[in-house]
Amino acid sequence: MTVAEALGALAPARRSAVTHAAPALHAVPARTVEAGEDLPAHPRATVDGYAVRASDTYAASETLPAFLEVTGAVAMGRAPEGQVGPGAAMTIPTGGLLPHGADAVVMVEHTTEPMAGHVELLRGVAPGDGVLHPGEEARAGDVLVPAGRPLRAADLGLLAAAGVTELAVHAPPRVGIVSTGDEVVPAATARPAPGEVRDACAPALAGLVAAAGGEPVLRGIVPDDAAQLEHVLAAAVAEDDMVVVSAGSSVGARDLTAAVAARLGDVVCHGLAVKPGKPTLLADCGGVPLVGLPGNPRSALVVFRLVGMPLVRTVAGITAPPPAPAVRARLGRDVPSAAGRLDVVQVALADGVATPLFGSSALLGPMVRADGWFRVPEADTGLGAGAEISVNLY
Amino acid sequence: MTVAEALGALAPARRSAVTHAAPALHAVPARTVEAGEDLPAHPRATVDGYAVRASDTYAASETLPAFLEVTGAVAMGRAPEGQVGPGAAMTIPTGGLLPHGADAVVMVEHTTEPMAGHVELLRGVAPGDGVLHPGEEARAGDVLVPAGRPLRAADLGLLAAAGVTELAVHAPPRVGIVSTGDEVVPAATARPAPGEVRDACAPALAGLVAAAGGEPVLRGIVPDDAAQLEHVLAAAVAEDDMVVVSAGSSVGARDLTAAVAARLGDVVCHGLAVKPGKPTLLADCGGVPLVGLPGNPRSALVVFRLVGMPLVRTVAGITAPPPAPAVRARLGRDVPSAAGRLDVVQVALADGVATPLFGSSALLGPMVRADGWFRVPEADTGLGAGAEISVNLY
Repeated sequence: MTVAEALGALAPARRSAVTHAAPALHAVPARTVEAGEDLPAHPRATVDGYAVRASDTYAASETLPAFLEVTGAVAMGRAPEGQVGPGAAMTIPTGGLLPHGADAVVMVEHTTEPMAGHVELLRGVAPGDGVLHPGEEARAGDVLVPAGRPLRAADLGLLAAAGVTELAVHAPPRVGIVSTGDEVVPAATARPAPGEVRDACAPALAGLVAAAGGEPVLRGIVPDDAAQLEHVLAAAVAEDDMVVVSAGSSVGARDLTAAVAARLGDVVCHGLAVKPGKPTLLADCGGVPLVGLPGNPRSALVVFRLVGMPLVRTVAGITAPPPAPAVRARLGRDVPSAAGRLDVVQVALADGVATPLFGSSALLGPMVRADGWFRVPEADTGLGAGAEISVNLY
Repeated sequence: MTVAEALGALAPARRSAVTHAAPALHAVPARTVEAGEDLPAHPRATVDGYAVRASDTYAASETLPAFLEVTGAVAMGRAPEGQVGPGAAMTIPTGGLLPHGADAVVMVEHTTEPMAGHVELLRGVAPGDGVLHPGEEARAGDVLVPAGRPLRAADLGLLAAAGVTELAVHAPPRVGIVSTGDEVVPAATARPAPGEVRDACAPALAGLVAAAGGEPVLRGIVPDDAAQLEHVLAAAVAEDDMVVVSAGSSVGARDLTAAVAARLGDVVCHGLAVKPGKPTLLADCGGVPLVGLPGNPRSALVVFRLVGMPLVRTVAGITAPPPAPAVRARLGRDVPSAAGRLDVVQVALADGVATPLFGSSALLGPMVRADGWFRVPEADTGLGAGAEISVNLY
């Protein structure tokens, strides 16, 4: 099964809980947020200058300035005292409330003050010039931020401007992470016995879960025993929004995971046309997606990036595509591949050249040293040195 | 001053505190982390199959298989019992510890079992085939993760594999955020009085600070009063690693900020060749960078992305460049610009076409609706419709 087919086959119903919270970076609005009022509520100056009636400035120029009486000053943060009558002007700072009678603001740079209490305008203005109009940012009922797109900095600003201090958001989905294998011991083990290996998958997967907007729930290490694995996975499926299991590196361990997954839900994919990452399992457990990953840490991370992170985003209520940090580069050497299989290749970047970093998929090092990765698509049988590729950046 | 000149002129000495913490996504190692032991410590199988002496498999083929006696089985997670002598083999799972005597593993796919206790090898192997060697991931003393590059998922895996459960990291730098302006009221104000506006800058800046790896410290709203502003900014400079002040939108408010900044440190930039964002101020206050931003929220966000976020990263101890999410697109219409000035233009993306979103820099809407932004460099006087541009994605 290709990655696209697998993601098509597993469309989990589960969504993380909806709560009310203050707007925060990357929070996912569960519903569209609309403006409750016009923004701005009143007309405001967008420049420092003089609030005027535009008709009084008609045809003003450097050679024939318009001459107005300054009848007052708009103070920042307060309603103007008085109004602008014909032949009059009031000083106004950027952001100041436009006084009644005025319909435009002349920039101070286009004026002179020939004598106290008077101003000469060296340019004419049209009605509305230098003014931010009521509702120009948003009218009552306009969409401020859409549902399903994680909040960005500008969104936080607009919501604050509109006085929205709480909104409905999806909680970060709980993603249960289960490590399996008789050989796996916790990372804190000072001296693993011969044959034992520290659990590298769970901490790395927790990082990818967090990067996708989820909350990793580390559910520990389970030995290669069907009853124990089913017990742990059943609890995870019941309590979490999504479950990931590093399925062990041996054929026996993988078969075990597959058998348990089949008892807990519908297996929709068992074997992915990806290198590294073929022994991948996807199941739908009553709406909760379960991802069984290859035991090699690097394979697990490649597959989780391709399949797991999109699932985390789906369950998190995210409908907007994630930003994809990518650069174009030229391939530094030939990369062979088999047709019908997606190859994911780690690369180091220097001077626009992407140098592939190979090595056993049991090694994390090539991924740690990589600046990014690229895909050799299913249809290709390899790419030649010099080919232009798109490198996804870490 | 151009953005590059400004960043060259302000090279703050300050770095955030170094603490010891468990490895976590995006944490910034303060020192290079080296392996304390060889990884793996012992040779392990990278495939399911048979541990053998490679010399016993010489010239084996489908027509002339090598015939070996199976003298035992390597169990996952345990030291092998016995060793592999001449003419012998042991079954071994992926990840299993290579038994003494063996120097290679033959994949199970390349074998048959003609009778119990014996195996036929259909292919020869060279010494080291199917084996992950001690130190192949890392040798004792090798660099596991470099200083100054925020930790990624693969780093978390490698550190766990090496048993590193604590390391020296830079704390997220505290970035004090000060809003100024007699007209500015908190976002929670239900009904601002005429002339008042809710504080949009501070929450939006907090988002960008967090995105750059900092810890926003909201220091509230200060009226346009030199003594009060100096009091608040002096406290921020004393307690925080970096200080940002939205300098008010009027000329008077900006002059006030500049005067206070000059009393607290050395002003290295007052006026940036950027649109929007010209009235930007940069000062070095005894090593602590102080950034004075334009009062218009969108201008403030543009400038903080160009200048403030790199400063946050510097103070956070980050020396690696951040990943830049970008795509190539064709410009949908002409964009004028003045030579010598960097223009930052918001764009919506559809079908490879980038449509500029204009509007007063007092409006956040164009930024909220944008998919990304691009630069018209200082040297250009504008770009024509159809020009190929690089769009930075939000």
